[in-house]
Amino acid sequence: MILTVTPNVALDITYRVDRLTPGSSHRVRRVEERAGGKGVNVARALHALGHDTIVFGFVGGAAAGAVMADLARGGLAHELVAVQGPTRRSIAVVDASNGEATLFNEAGPPVPATSWNDLEARLAARLPEAAALVVSGSLPPGARDDACARLVRLAAAHRVTVLVDTVGEALLQAAAAGADIVKPNSSELLQTTDCSDVASAATALRRRGAKAVVVSLGAAGMTAFTPEGSWRAAPPTRIVGNPTGSGDAAAAALVAGAVAGAPWPDRLRDAVALSAAAVLQATAGSVDLRDYLRLVPQILVEERHDPGLDR
Amino acid sequence: MILTVTPNVALDITYRVDRLTPGSSHRVRRVEERAGGKGVNVARALHALGHDTIVFGFVGGAAAGAVMADLARGGLAHELVAVQGPTRRSIAVVDASNGEATLFNEAGPPVPATSWNDLEARLAARLPEAAALVVSGSLPPGARDDACARLVRLAAAHRVTVLVDTVGEALLQAAAAGADIVKPNSSELLQTTDCSDVASAATALRRRGAKAVVVSLGAAGMTAFTPEGSWRAAPPTRIVGNPTGSGDAAAAALVAGAVAGAPWPDRLRDAVALSAAAVLQATAGSVDLRDYLRLVPQILVEERHDPGLDR
Repeated sequence: MILTVTPNVALDITYRVDRLTPGSSHRVRRVEERAGGKGVNVARALHALGHDTIVFGFVGGAAAGAVMADLARGGLAHELVAVQGPTRRSIAVVDASNGEATLFNEAGPPVPATSWNDLEARLAARLPEAAALVVSGSLPPGARDDACARLVRLAAAHRVTVLVDTVGEALLQAAAAGADIVKPNSSELLQTTDCSDVASAATALRRRGAKAVVVSLGAAGMTAFTPEGSWRAAPPTRIVGNPTGSGDAAAAALVAGAVAGAPWPDRLRDAVALSAAAVLQATAGSVDLRDYLRLVPQILVEERHDPGLDR
Repeated sequence: MILTVTPNVALDITYRVDRLTPGSSHRVRRVEERAGGKGVNVARALHALGHDTIVFGFVGGAAAGAVMADLARGGLAHELVAVQGPTRRSIAVVDASNGEATLFNEAGPPVPATSWNDLEARLAARLPEAAALVVSGSLPPGARDDACARLVRLAAAHRVTVLVDTVGEALLQAAAAGADIVKPNSSELLQTTDCSDVASAATALRRRGAKAVVVSLGAAGMTAFTPEGSWRAAPPTRIVGNPTGSGDAAAAALVAGAVAGAPWPDRLRDAVALSAAAVLQATAGSVDLRDYLRLVPQILVEERHDPGLDR
């Protein structure tokens, strides 16, 4: 059982229009609604890999029903804490003439301290039977910077492996709380640490307390900085498709590998392969396992020997 | 008491973004939600003029609650028939850098015949105490072309004045059913009648059975073709602002004038003044009565003497 926390759950709405023309009126040809937010995508990918999951997070307002209905449709168990403000909508307008997506992201509801306490109590009840915890995505407006760090400490108290994928001060504090794996993408990592290269930035996060730092490099693959060594993995060719949710598929593979006790090079290869499989799907977090299995042997993994890297 | 029917109620959502760039991701700075659809805007303008109204229509899905909450906030009584499909959302993305609005309109839920029957039964119960009925806006997907015509005949059976603002076959059939006033805009009128000029098109609708045809000409004002004669009214200068809902304010003034038994030139002057007042407001259907009262004496009304016009 792997628990995922999405602090700022979304209702992802996709609108298809013939052609997006700023300043004009568009007839929406098709509407799709999915539960969204990074932790939800991670749970969807874990579910595809055959893992039991529970989705945790906060929901409220009119979109809450649509979020829960979609989770149920996807076979994803959830324990969502109700809040007063409305769950954020994220609208992707897809232009049928060129396939280009234009996104409009609402901010999400403020989450009061009592609701965070409620979330922690629900997690504490499930952690004894859990193999891992994933905390993924941005924090809702007004959240305390230690919100993720508190969840890391809660998982550690239950000796449960924890992966955190977030940015900024919340990421720094999650690292300091001793997260087993933190998984920012390269631009988030550089922005958060104020470093100019990925290796120094990862080292900075590990010195703060993160056990391993895995950095996604977009189409170029991923790099892992771990106590066992550092590796880089890349797909053999550029995979073209929808990158939304590919980092979440990578997080799912990394946590699944950690639960299985796989060696780091294997975890990284699986993460890049599952991430590439997700790029081939239109829906964030969806993967076709046949793509994944076909891609795994094609991933190139090489050890890094950067001077100055901590082990 | 004036009843308004909105066959395809909307939840109007306004998003403010810093600058709309197709293909990129936008943070929504502010979200506003209002009950929308043309009949709702008419009711809002009538309410501003001091008339009691009841909003009729169909609502369903997650947006229904937001629609009803906004009607309640605006003091608008409503009798909405619940349908299974979701009420359409209409999203206006306003670019803060230039004030330009880009609209995305969903289609709306199909309305089964039993729900139309339910609407007619509710109207029949209220028509004995009503002074007028307004049917305004497009029909939901799959509606029968005689849907508006049936409501016109229902109002006529109760000797209640009825104004219809719609397009296409539904407009032609509403005219044939003997609507007291039909109020298309000029492009809708020309498209519906396949005529090349407004006067011939209005005459065609009157020959079908409409008692009066009032045509909005955008910033150029309005023209009325009635049994008492034909008039054109125009604002003294071009009014700059938000034209959404200005036609609905005009419909409100026309029906209010009909209820009061005002002469046609006065009804038309009031309609152009209230329409111009609505252009000065950011929200569709809202008017500041001080703008209206200031504008009324400024409106220029002149009788038309087109050859070939029917009386």
